[in-house]
Amino acid sequence: MMNDIIKYIRENYTNKNKVETDPGFGLNTYDSNIRFINENGKSNIRRVGVSIWERMDVFYTLLNMNWFTFLLVIITGYILVNFLFVLIYVLIGVEHLAGIQANTASESFWEAFYFSAQTLTTVGYGRISPLGQMTSAVAALESLLGLLGFAVFTGLIYGRFTRPVFTLKYSTNALIAPYRGITALMVRVANPKMNELLETEAIVMITYIHPETQKRTYVQLELERNNIMFFSMSWTIVHPISENSPLVGWTMEDIQTNQVEVFVTIKAYDETRSQHIYWRNSYKATEFVMGAKFKPMNITFNDKGEILYDLRQLNEYEKAELPY
Amino acid sequence: MMNDIIKYIRENYTNKNKVETDPGFGLNTYDSNIRFINENGKSNIRRVGVSIWERMDVFYTLLNMNWFTFLLVIITGYILVNFLFVLIYVLIGVEHLAGIQANTASESFWEAFYFSAQTLTTVGYGRISPLGQMTSAVAALESLLGLLGFAVFTGLIYGRFTRPVFTLKYSTNALIAPYRGITALMVRVANPKMNELLETEAIVMITYIHPETQKRTYVQLELERNNIMFFSMSWTIVHPISENSPLVGWTMEDIQTNQVEVFVTIKAYDETRSQHIYWRNSYKATEFVMGAKFKPMNITFNDKGEILYDLRQLNEYEKAELPY
Amino acid sequence: MMNDIIKYIRENYTNKNKVETDPGFGLNTYDSNIRFINENGKSNIRRVGVSIWERMDVFYTLLNMNWFTFLLVIITGYILVNFLFVLIYVLIGVEHLAGIQANTASESFWEAFYFSAQTLTTVGYGRISPLGQMTSAVAALESLLGLLGFAVFTGLIYGRFTRPVFTLKYSTNALIAPYRGITALMVRVANPKMNELLETEAIVMITYIHPETQKRTYVQLELERNNIMFFSMSWTIVHPISENSPLVGWTMEDIQTNQVEVFVTIKAYDETRSQHIYWRNSYKATEFVMGAKFKPMNITFNDKGEILYDLRQLNEYEKAELPY
Amino acid sequence: MMNDIIKYIRENYTNKNKVETDPGFGLNTYDSNIRFINENGKSNIRRVGVSIWERMDVFYTLLNMNWFTFLLVIITGYILVNFLFVLIYVLIGVEHLAGIQANTASESFWEAFYFSAQTLTTVGYGRISPLGQMTSAVAALESLLGLLGFAVFTGLIYGRFTRPVFTLKYSTNALIAPYRGITALMVRVANPKMNELLETEAIVMITYIHPETQKRTYVQLELERNNIMFFSMSWTIVHPISENSPLVGWTMEDIQTNQVEVFVTIKAYDETRSQHIYWRNSYKATEFVMGAKFKPMNITFNDKGEILYDLRQLNEYEKAELPY
Repeated sequence: MMNDIIKYIRENYTNKNKVETDPGFGLNTYDSNIRFINENGKSNIRRVGVSIWERMDVFYTLLNMNWFTFLLVIITGYILVNFLFVLIYVLIGVEHLAGIQANTASESFWEAFYFSAQTLTTVGYGRISPLGQMTSAVAALESLLGLLGFAVFTGLIYGRFTRPVFTLKYSTNALIAPYRGITALMVRVANPKMNELLETEAIVMITYIHPETQKRTYVQLELERNNIMFFSMSWTIVHPISENSPLVGWTMEDIQTNQVEVFVTIKAYDETRSQHIYWRNSYKATEFVMGAKFKPMNITFNDKGEILYDLRQLNEYEKAELPY
Repeated sequence: MMNDIIKYIRENYTNKNKVETDPGFGLNTYDSNIRFINENGKSNIRRVGVSIWERMDVFYTLLNMNWFTFLLVIITGYILVNFLFVLIYVLIGVEHLAGIQANTASESFWEAFYFSAQTLTTVGYGRISPLGQMTSAVAALESLLGLLGFAVFTGLIYGRFTRPVFTLKYSTNALIAPYRGITALMVRVANPKMNELLETEAIVMITYIHPETQKRTYVQLELERNNIMFFSMSWTIVHPISENSPLVGWTMEDIQTNQVEVFVTIKAYDETRSQHIYWRNSYKATEFVMGAKFKPMNITFNDKGEILYDLRQLNEYEKAELPY
Repeated sequence: MMNDIIKYIRENYTNKNKVETDPGFGLNTYDSNIRFINENGKSNIRRVGVSIWERMDVFYTLLNMNWFTFLLVIITGYILVNFLFVLIYVLIGVEHLAGIQANTASESFWEAFYFSAQTLTTVGYGRISPLGQMTSAVAALESLLGLLGFAVFTGLIYGRFTRPVFTLKYSTNALIAPYRGITALMVRVANPKMNELLETEAIVMITYIHPETQKRTYVQLELERNNIMFFSMSWTIVHPISENSPLVGWTMEDIQTNQVEVFVTIKAYDETRSQHIYWRNSYKATEFVMGAKFKPMNITFNDKGEILYDLRQLNEYEKAELPY
Repeated sequence: MMNDIIKYIRENYTNKNKVETDPGFGLNTYDSNIRFINENGKSNIRRVGVSIWERMDVFYTLLNMNWFTFLLVIITGYILVNFLFVLIYVLIGVEHLAGIQANTASESFWEAFYFSAQTLTTVGYGRISPLGQMTSAVAALESLLGLLGFAVFTGLIYGRFTRPVFTLKYSTNALIAPYRGITALMVRVANPKMNELLETEAIVMITYIHPETQKRTYVQLELERNNIMFFSMSWTIVHPISENSPLVGWTMEDIQTNQVEVFVTIKAYDETRSQHIYWRNSYKATEFVMGAKFKPMNITFNDKGEILYDLRQLNEYEKAELPY
């Protein structure tokens, strides 16, 4: 019986070597006016059917929110924790806060509040100081919690500060240009920063409605080269439209009809941060230009012997005749 | 003589290219009701014959204990260190703590205790302050040790806070499904978080009692594809049961009899944390379903142009006829 | 029509496998007296046509400036922030700073200034302390901002302190030496530190004016070996000038005329820092020596059983006859 | 002429594919009683001919010194910095330290000293506080420097605390054991910790005095397998002594005469620390055992379903007959 099965497999196992490209995208259809990747490089997905605790990563949220919201979160948290401790100090009795200068309950409350703040931040001026067992114990605990609690925010602030926010510069258009007797899809990227980017890699994927199956298809495009050692200036990423390319023989109209979108992912090692950075960008059909090539980037030298490199030329292209 | 040896080797070296799979598991037999990997993804091993110092990694322990225990450790340590310094202050004489307000020995003790706490946390209100050479010196040392000691806990708290706690979602069942004319083992995983997971890899291993040798065997399964670039939604991991698969021709009964367990390890680069994360899961024979396939995950769009993606469908499957 | 295109491609796709080397350098011509890589290992490029915000990475700048400038930045920032808060305290009224000892407006200003400094650093002596709602609130906020603001500088100082500043030692000259019947380009590097460098890799690139096209060309040179496991002492990096080498048959004059520059990049894993480090160096045509070989590095032992290894010999070479 | 050179190269380029193994070791000869790798896994090399600044990496030194020395460095530094500031306070005049309680110059000095310590650690009790422009300015600077200076030590302490100190357990002996009809060199390693070690790799190198050239030779040994996915228990690393092995046909006497030393490097990803760890060990000729094999490690289960794994068996071996 086993032999029958093996025989069956040998005869019936089809498309043995065919591999679907990146099922992680997982979309069979999507409308041509939906962008899979947003301008900020994040994917445009909303998860449903999971609780917020499963869906949310607190660290991700705190690292990716804008600075204004982040500071609001910190200051709100700071005030709330102080309120909590004020409550405790008041319950124990504000008379155990030596040095307090208050005539009314409201004044007592605020004196306790600022004492709490001075304890939490460990500034401890000492005009007000805890007196008596319970108040002293709570203050000792509060200063401990202050130290530990600020650990998280201290780390987060440094994490937010050092995380790479800079964007690579991408050409606005993706060109179909003449290339070694045939045509090629070309986009150009530039490193606008002084940071040394090492071992830079490009991954280019295309998605389109397959003309035959009418299903959205995802394919990784073969590149002339997919990595460079030094990425100091610009890099023209080239996908030769050879006979295996899904784009072979397509006109500008086909590109539009088939709802093409090209994803360009760049990965590089940022020496300053000792870590890998990823950038994502995408080109919609409307951003394609047929029959054009990038102008070479003009490089000059100043009298200090520096190499001057003008990034405004990144998207400059000129008409170029295609072989077909 | 050397020639004889080489001749001998050429004739007698058997199974030159055969490689045992992952001896790191190292178990020749284990009972079918023992789980090698626990629900929390940790391996279920207890080391004996080594001292606790060789067996324990303090960092590992402090990072993996639950928050309650962790805070207990900190607070206990805080109290103990304060007691130690109180002892020293009392031995020197509490009269060197200026500003102390105590009538009894017990009150002196607690005033010294809170002074110590105020020194260790560097809050230093100053109602009580050191006076005289020795007490001042001890206090200077205590505040130094406070700063340095909290360094470890500050780092640990941030480390615990930022470490990835989120779990991938795995399908509850492993299916034997029809696949390109033959059958395949399929499990489905999903990324429930907003975090971008890049360069995701899957490693699937199977262990079973070998029908012939009756010894527990470990084999890595070949996958249709073992990595995806973007893991934003779900990924169906597919092991085609081709003629080389250990599962070829097995019935549900064989799977149970041979005490199959399948380990699915996922590795991905979490962009938020700039580090690789590993997830582990395993499927026991009882979690296999023969003749079923996963339903495609239904993806919809809302009017904000977002892609809605429902994770409740992860384990949804339907009956599917197998070719044999 | 598609068939025509594919037929056309098959017939006209030229240089299918030829790949330009590292277009990231991106320079078609450059003068022989310009160094692409500076002595400090940074590339010698100045970006124009982008705003400073696009061009600058704050973290890069703060990490790479010298210590003097860095401390100046911190102290200036410290003073400015204090001035800002003094302004607020003065606007609220310095009479809300209890304990202030001032007769003139100027003295009040400076007492407020030092109170601000004591709050920002959380030292909080308490001789001066805030009294009243508004001043207390501002002080509470200032101590919070102090804690958070120093987070960045604390992290930066540690980052600057731990980042690898050490340089590998490179031989001053690149030799054309006899090698296995032919010739080879050789440079020698040494690890002058106790740090264990693991999985060390070398990438050697050459740039020259191509004798035929007169265009600056970049080619990666093939090495006898491009990685070593342990890099404790010295490593002679060898590019055999075989028939595929661009240097084949070149005389010293050719090397000068063609404006050769050789870039040697070393990448290693520094166990101490748990990170990869990159070093860059370059050899200009004037630093080439034709017909010489490195003297072996003399290694001795002391009576403690230590291996003594003399780095002064790194660039020592002797005349050696070439086969042609 | 170029054609002549290419013709010459084609005829004379010898040993084209032969590669010297790891010249990073760089030792042509060394005495059999010198250990290249110390017990602590560090290499036994002393650099000469370079200044201490080129030879020393401050971070390496501070991270690798023992805790006692490290604390001594911190406390000494703390005292010295305080002395420096005392000097400044005394030069300005101790009368600007309000609250000082001193009758003699010595008492003034020590009061200033403790004030300085209270400022540097930001504890700032406030019994003593700065009064007047200059003293206040110096104190403001001192608290700033205190914050920044402790940044380095805080980071270092956490770095020291979290760095992997644990050692893998290695078998004491390297065995020449029977293996698939021939013989093999075997060593066994175990993970004594709960830490998950992932993607574990082994690199085994041998060094010996080459019987023909009498020069010390370094060769990387081929392994049956050089990586395992999970390293939870033990791993027997196997070098089959096939016809290409340098050990082929060697007797115990040859191993001793040729001064064999085998280096075993293990590299693994420690999930707890999110970093790669390297371990090094070496086996001298005297630690070889000919004709023995490791006993399988006995694994049992307790009634909690845990896998019990006894590390005392790691070096247990038994006599085993070799085929020749």
